Amino acid sequence: MKTIGENDLVLIVYKDKRYLKKVTLDKPFHGKGGILTFSDLIGKSFGIRCGQYEIYEPTIEDIIMHGIRRETQIVFPKDGFFVCFKLNLKHNSRVIEVGTGSGALTFLFSHIVGPEGMVVSFEKEERHYKNAKKNIERFVEWGNVDLHHGDVMDYFNDEFDAAFIDVREPWIYFDKVRSLLTESGSLGMIVPTANQVTEILMRLKDGFGDIEVMEIMLRKYKTLAERVRPEDRMVAHTGYLLFARKLSEYQLAGDSLE
Amino acid sequence: MKTIGENDLVLIVYKDKRYLKKVTLDKPFHGKGGILTFSDLIGKSFGIRCGQYEIYEPTIEDIIMHGIRRETQIVFPKDGFFVCFKLNLKHNSRVIEVGTGSGALTFLFSHIVGPEGMVVSFEKEERHYKNAKKNIERFVEWGNVDLHHGDVMDYFNDEFDAAFIDVREPWIYFDKVRSLLTESGSLGMIVPTANQVTEILMRLKDGFGDIEVMEIMLRKYKTLAERVRPEDRMVAHTGYLLFARKLSEYQLAGDSLE
Amino acid sequence: MKTIGENDLVLIVYKDKRYLKKVTLDKPFHGKGGILTFSDLIGKSFGIRCGQYEIYEPTIEDIIMHGIRRETQIVFPKDGFFVCFKLNLKHNSRVIEVGTGSGALTFLFSHIVGPEGMVVSFEKEERHYKNAKKNIERFVEWGNVDLHHGDVMDYFNDEFDAAFIDVREPWIYFDKVRSLLTESGSLGMIVPTANQVTEILMRLKDGFGDIEVMEIMLRKYKTLAERVRPEDRMVAHTGYLLFARKLSEYQLAGDSLE
Amino acid sequence: MKTIGENDLVLIVYKDKRYLKKVTLDKPFHGKGGILTFSDLIGKSFGIRCGQYEIYEPTIEDIIMHGIRRETQIVFPKDGFFVCFKLNLKHNSRVIEVGTGSGALTFLFSHIVGPEGMVVSFEKEERHYKNAKKNIERFVEWGNVDLHHGDVMDYFNDEFDAAFIDVREPWIYFDKVRSLLTESGSLGMIVPTANQVTEILMRLKDGFGDIEVMEIMLRKYKTLAERVRPEDRMVAHTGYLLFARKLSEYQLAGDSLE
Repeated sequence: MKTIGENDLVLIVYKDKRYLKKVTLDKPFHGKGGILTFSDLIGKSFGIRCGQYEIYEPTIEDIIMHGIRRETQIVFPKDGFFVCFKLNLKHNSRVIEVGTGSGALTFLFSHIVGPEGMVVSFEKEERHYKNAKKNIERFVEWGNVDLHHGDVMDYFNDEFDAAFIDVREPWIYFDKVRSLLTESGSLGMIVPTANQVTEILMRLKDGFGDIEVMEIMLRKYKTLAERVRPEDRMVAHTGYLLFARKLSEYQLAGDSLE
Repeated sequence: MKTIGENDLVLIVYKDKRYLKKVTLDKPFHGKGGILTFSDLIGKSFGIRCGQYEIYEPTIEDIIMHGIRRETQIVFPKDGFFVCFKLNLKHNSRVIEVGTGSGALTFLFSHIVGPEGMVVSFEKEERHYKNAKKNIERFVEWGNVDLHHGDVMDYFNDEFDAAFIDVREPWIYFDKVRSLLTESGSLGMIVPTANQVTEILMRLKDGFGDIEVMEIMLRKYKTLAERVRPEDRMVAHTGYLLFARKLSEYQLAGDSLE
Repeated sequence: MKTIGENDLVLIVYKDKRYLKKVTLDKPFHGKGGILTFSDLIGKSFGIRCGQYEIYEPTIEDIIMHGIRRETQIVFPKDGFFVCFKLNLKHNSRVIEVGTGSGALTFLFSHIVGPEGMVVSFEKEERHYKNAKKNIERFVEWGNVDLHHGDVMDYFNDEFDAAFIDVREPWIYFDKVRSLLTESGSLGMIVPTANQVTEILMRLKDGFGDIEVMEIMLRKYKTLAERVRPEDRMVAHTGYLLFARKLSEYQLAGDSLE
Repeated sequence: MKTIGENDLVLIVYKDKRYLKKVTLDKPFHGKGGILTFSDLIGKSFGIRCGQYEIYEPTIEDIIMHGIRRETQIVFPKDGFFVCFKLNLKHNSRVIEVGTGSGALTFLFSHIVGPEGMVVSFEKEERHYKNAKKNIERFVEWGNVDLHHGDVMDYFNDEFDAAFIDVREPWIYFDKVRSLLTESGSLGMIVPTANQVTEILMRLKDGFGDIEVMEIMLRKYKTLAERVRPEDRMVAHTGYLLFARKLSEYQLAGDSLE
């Protein structure tokens, strides 16, 4: 059983409010459910009620939703979770990200590839780079993230199992990213508009196959047993997800029935 | 660069058809795109065209969708991907599953917890257990799955970071699973009907907090650049996902503003 | 061409704001787009720009969304439009409504059955009855609505082509409404929770056939040509719609292949 | 009470199968539920069981889904119902349709505008025109449909309350249709692709205001009380709906706060 110590992150839940906070002995927490004196928690287990609050050990989703400081639109968990597996990320994978943004997806990638995996991420905008750097330093568990302030076009070193592009004009990077991908490696993208989907589909033809376009919709329900029903409102759109796999330019002859 | 060898699994794509096959020198593949002689592939890289086929290294999703032999309704990737992260699974996690079914989610769990993680899964039905066992043996990369033919009620050993229940009456296992979970550990469930959601919400009150109910919908698009539009039909329902976290029975006093 | 006259209703549009107002010579309109002096509009056609506003002749939807004064949750246009046709309403139809609420659906029914049709509607709650009465008086074009403050249980007179029940416990009225329906006549209902759907399905077995349950979801898009994409948020749930048709209690013998 | 007579249309329901048939004394109906001898039904009321079948009076939706002979993709009820009200159609309305197709929406328009309304519809393709003509003759109740084999560009006579365009390139008709619309009159369109939405939004700027783009999704549920859940699959896409209103080209000065 893990107990709560000083400087630990805790998720504090009060009704439908959630707060991600660091345990600090000198500064109590003031929220809608009253004052929470952190010293009460030291040495206790996570998963405990304190006054009107519930205190949990934060999950990846808690950190993305309530910890990561956003200076850009982030890739939301519903999309990020799906992306990780579509890119076939796992223990030891090497993944490259073009467009770090606030680092939410970078964090998720770090999480899934584990201590022996590698996440290389590029951000051109200095302000976003600095913010992402702080987020990564604050939340990433393993030293597996290599964050660059610069242009992926100047990068040549490695071979990656997978790549993700999250910029306004992903097509600019198709050739470059393809050169950094291992054979059969997966490429993912997220774009907000159907116009960008059109543009990507026009330009992705060479060197990539098995193209897919999709949306993930998350519909939450109220949790009153006697009144099971969806929430009144939902997020209707974050972005269109696109996936493809690297394909060699030459091809084997093969037999054919046709 | 990884090359294709005998007995490797390959994903064979022809238009919208996908086949997951083992490379066998004596048996060619017959599909809609003609005959594929596997010996042509040996020593070549993945991500290659051969005749009318594209040949890729299989991803987790390919294996779940085209490899796992189904004797039960499986947890589909759109749901399974989401579950893994909601349960906060990562490198080293320990997770228990009640209701192995065909082992699709077991396989996904094994994948995300990595070689040093642990997946313990229980299946009562002998026929399903045997089928799941074959699936696990065939596809799981690391020896991190402990599959049981029997009832989780008779299991006492371990403490788990997370649990997933996929049976008709999940509430039967609430107390047992709670006793196997670490403090603040996450519980997930999937059920097909709203009636089961009601029943779960009625019975989950003690010892669990932060309850959530949701659906994940996946909407695929056609990939013709000049005609961007959703597919005509989609999967409308697989199941309702429910999540909760273990909460201690006693509570700290805490201050209160109210 | 219809011109704008005193006391006409006009829809005033400014960016994404919409206002439904009566043309009054002594009181100008103050909105986000500035002051609108109604006398400028008199004798002009609808469909005109005035300063930063666009002025249109109100549609049924405009009146429901911006005219009807709401003291209850109304049946939204996306659902109401669908209900009208599922109930097979048209010129001359006779429809009975149990639970007038604010009269939004009553208004829509009046609209579709036309001057020679008939809408009979019952509301038990005096406060809602009075509000609905005002809405009906203000907006209904034809004298085809017969609004009752009371219980439909005390009503015996007529035979209706269709019925709609919008109350918390619709099953209370199944027998009564059935007795007021013509043979093969359609029954519709709307309920917010899955628990009510269950209850209705249990109790609707006798005397009704062809039962259907469904949801209508409306997803709006932004209208910038270069950035076609759904709105960020949408209404996720208003209610479950249920439909059935009256079935005789006796049955003809019929042949059978089975 | 209406009774079934020779040559009446009846809806025959057997489990989830539906058939729309004309009552013919010499030809019995053969379906999955056995043989149905129509003479058994004569003089009986609609809404009756006969052997394993249920017999209902057909609704508008039944006719569109099971009666209209389709030579083109039709506008489905979920969309058509919505369109009728968005176009503000009612008793007496005059509506023009460009692209009759199979006449499903024409039929719906006829239905809602009633015996004193008017539906003018143009179809260029002779084959579709002939098929639509048969559908209209067979199912339309009132003589309010004026079907043209030809190009709406050659039409000048009337002023319409509303217009609907259902062709591949709706923008070709924007000016023409605008000239046939009354001031403030509503224009609707349906197109299958996001590319067409982009094109329409680029070209619709002059002479139209209050532009809206949307999708209607219909999600059906199973009807077993103990197992309330959505159907496994659903129609994911029929088309994007677009609406606008005619706006005068000149504008009044108006005051302004800005």
